[in-house]
Parts: sequence; structure tokens; C-alpha cells
Amino acid sequence: MARVGVVLSGCGVYDGAEIHESVFTLLALDEAGAEIVIMAPSGPQMHVINHLTGEVMDEARDMRVEAARIARGAPLELGEVKAEDLDALVFPGGFGVAKNLCDFAIHGPSCTVNPDVAALVKAMHAAGKPLGFACIAPAMAAAIFKDAGIGAARLTVGAAEDEAAKAIEAMGAHHVACPVEGIEIDEANKIVSTPAYMIGQNLVGVRAGLKAMVDAVLAMI
Amino acid sequence: MARVGVVLSGCGVYDGAEIHESVFTLLALDEAGAEIVIMAPSGPQMHVINHLTGEVMDEARDMRVEAARIARGAPLELGEVKAEDLDALVFPGGFGVAKNLCDFAIHGPSCTVNPDVAALVKAMHAAGKPLGFACIAPAMAAAIFKDAGIGAARLTVGAAEDEAAKAIEAMGAHHVACPVEGIEIDEANKIVSTPAYMIGQNLVGVRAGLKAMVDAVLAMI
Repeated sequence: MARVGVVLSGCGVYDGAEIHESVFTLLALDEAGAEIVIMAPSGPQMHVINHLTGEVMDEARDMRVEAARIARGAPLELGEVKAEDLDALVFPGGFGVAKNLCDFAIHGPSCTVNPDVAALVKAMHAAGKPLGFACIAPAMAAAIFKDAGIGAARLTVGAAEDEAAKAIEAMGAHHVACPVEGIEIDEANKIVSTPAYMIGQNLVGVRAGLKAMVDAVLAMI
Repeated sequence: MARVGVVLSGCGVYDGAEIHESVFTLLALDEAGAEIVIMAPSGPQMHVINHLTGEVMDEARDMRVEAARIARGAPLELGEVKAEDLDALVFPGGFGVAKNLCDFAIHGPSCTVNPDVAALVKAMHAAGKPLGFACIAPAMAAAIFKDAGIGAARLTVGAAEDEAAKAIEAMGAHHVACPVEGIEIDEANKIVSTPAYMIGQNLVGVRAGLKAMVDAVLAMI
């Protein structure tokens, strides 16, 4: 049975892990019979957004505490997970990836990535283990790969004209346009990406893309 | 196109709407081509639970504000939705149903139900429109039906020996045992229920039960 890590960054599209994408990732792993290892870094979210109004709330929430809502239990502390514990690692999207796991939402292509997240992704890549990135997470992947001096990866966030797609190119990776139900597979780097809600208009399309991503990642193990 | 209301009670299994059940309900409606109308009552959750530790947090959160995380947008104010606006109404579960929409978690069979929720369910039933209840929500349905003097409904929360099943019987409804992927259909009352995480052990089973519930509700319109 494949052991697959799922990295969450909170709970909610505007300040954490996108909920539909996270659940569809978990569902696809369960459908495939994989062992699911949910993890999140501890620490404060960049901010808390009132999802009804879009306004910033005067509150503090912890990434891992909120991620436990999606996990229905305690996610592992990401910094304590080693590449040798996993056969693959996947990242659902949501602004939590771009605000909490890295600061791409603020600094774009010159962003920095949470050191534990970057270290785990680099260790997985070095061990030849497959990685999956959905929604905005491919932008973080490009930042990690740039920092590690790894050759250009092929990634998608959906539409070439999106600012995130341009940022991926600016960080030295290749952006490839892709429909919501599709995936981009970088065989050389063992990376699969899917646009999810970067371009998704409904649950069915996002679900299809994430299932395709998970199945492609599992096929690379 | 069928217009189907989905009632959320927050965001997270221990103090709000169960996230997986909510997303699987929305997915099944989207797969069936239904128009989804997400709603929640405004007002404070009974409490906020740290989902990592299980402890009560010294915080206040609003049901509708938190439900917006699952909705990816603004849920309608439940009290402003009328039965004539909908063709069917469904309730995912989670402790939010038993703590926020009613107080079944505290008072069991002598619980009281949020007046707006009770009024909408009664109006839907009176109009001959189908209702769906997942997880612990059938216990709230029994309380509403008892209060309205409606004849005994057939409902399931999974296992007959569960305290919630006994409470359903105590409120004058009939509890029927059911596996997680199954549904109990009360044709006379146009009610469909499924156990979901009352007995569910994985995402696949819960997804199957909620898809079956949604499809049966839609077939009754």
C-alpha cells in the first residue's frame, strides 16, 4: 500500500487549504487504496479572512489546528515527517499555500518557502519520489526548484496569461496551459500538476483534475 | 434544473458542518446537474473546538461566516429562504447540526431546534418537497417532525444500538439500521437519510452514501 503525504495549510480557500481540493485529494487517495498521511506545519496563518465578506478578521489561527478540521483528526507536524516515511507527496491548493507555506501571494517570483516544506519537497525529489501540486501550489514548486538549482520543471496552473503562470516562467520553470480536468505530467522530475480552482468553475471539473493528478502520482511510485 | 438547498452549520466536524459530508453533498448535486443553494443561519456556534486537541477554545465563530469556507462564497441567510424557492433541501451532518442547528448534543430527545431551520423543514414537508438528512441530522429531523405532530418518519443514523438511534425512536420516529453506503427512503414523507460518519470508516463509504442520498432526493422531485 502506497503511503502518500497530503500537505494542508489551514482550512478555507482565502487563508488556508482549499477545502474542496483537499477533500477530493483525500477521496482519490482512498479510492486508490493508498494510505493517507495528512500533515501541516504548526504556526500562525498569515491572516484570517472572513469568507462571507472577504475582510481580514482580527483573529489568529494556527495552520495545523485548522487543517485538523479537514483531516478529522490530528495532522502530523510537517517538520517531523521525513521523505523516507512517504512514497509520494501531494499539495492541494488554496491561498494558504501562497500565504502560509510560502509568501508567493506577497512577493511573487521572489517568494521564500517555509523551510520545512522546501526541505521535504527537495528530499522527495532527490529520492525519486513523485510529487503532486494543485491550484496555486505549482508556483511554490517552481520557487523550491529554483532555490534548489533543479532543472526547469513542467508545471501548470491552467491559463498561460495568469500572473501565476508568468511567475512560474520567471522562476525558470516551464508553464504549460491545461484544462481544469487535465494534468501536466513532468516525467523527468516526477511532478504532476492540475489547475483546480485556478480556473475551475464547478466541483465536477476540479474533482476530475484532482483524481487524475492523484492517479498519475500513484502510477509513478 | 432542480434547485436544491444545502444547509451548513459551520465548518468542521466537532463544532460545525462535517467537511467531507458537505463537499460530497455538493459534488453529488453538481454531478446531477442540480442548482446548488447553500445556506446557513447567522449566529454564534455553540462553541469552537480545537480539532487538533479536542479542547474548547476561548473563541467565538459565526455559523454562516464559517460555512462560507465550505461554500467558497456567501451562503444565503437561512431565515430568508422560503420553501417556494427550493425543490428539495438536504442537511450534511457534523456536530454543528446537533449543537448549532438544534441542541440535541446537550438535551437528546428533548432538544429544541433553531426556529428558522424547523420552519423551513416543515414548510418543505408541507409542500411535498423531498428532504435529505445525513449523519446526525436525522435526529434533528425526528425532533422537528415530533414538534410538528407529523406521523412517524423512517430514518437512519446507521446502527440501532447508537444513542442517536434510540433517541430517534424516543421522539416517535422509526429508526432503521443501514450500512454507510446505503440510504433509508421514507416514500410517504419524502425523506432520505444516510449514516455517513455516524458509522463511516473512510471517505469512499461516506461519499457513496451521500451520493445515493442526493440521487434519491432528486428522484423524488
